[in-house]
Amino acid sequence: MNYYSSEMLGFAAGIVTTLALLPQALKIFTTRKTRDISLLWAVSMNVGIVIWLCYGLAKDDLPMIAANSVSLALLFVILLFKLRYR
Amino acid sequence: MNYYSSEMLGFAAGIVTTLALLPQALKIFTTRKTRDISLLWAVSMNVGIVIWLCYGLAKDDLPMIAANSVSLALLFVILLFKLRYR
Repeated sequence: MNYYSSEMLGFAAGIVTTLALLPQALKIFTTRKTRDISLLWAVSMNVGIVIWLCYGLAKDDLPMIAANSVSLALLFVILLFKLRYR
Repeated sequence: MNYYSSEMLGFAAGIVTTLALLPQALKIFTTRKTRDISLLWAVSMNVGIVIWLCYGLAKDDLPMIAANSVSLALLFVILLFKLRYR
């Protein structure tokens, strides 16, 4: 697979997993309910995505840097919701 | 950053984001409740992680291949739970 094909694959993956967080954030925003969501999941995902972002920066991998930056913002909002609406 | 340091970073990221799914899966398994979890999130994450796995394979990136394989298995279980216990 050539460089551009694999980059496109990376961007596609990043767009899908990042957009995946939107309906979850919107659901919590509208219902104000987070009981079925694991706090440990929310905390670990924030920590883990920070490390993925560092990995993307270390490898100079644009799809990983872009996807993980936006994902981190959304996951941080989800974590704040989880802490606010237990 | 040298190759081994960045690989370690990738494995650390993969371990954290993969293990993050465990408390979520266990929470659903014990409560049998998934009302606050977005079905669209669960579906999109399964699709997105399949693409991340393909990206990891295309780039021959071991941390991405390992992390996304295990994450996919856990996300698939979470999706099945979500479909079973609405």
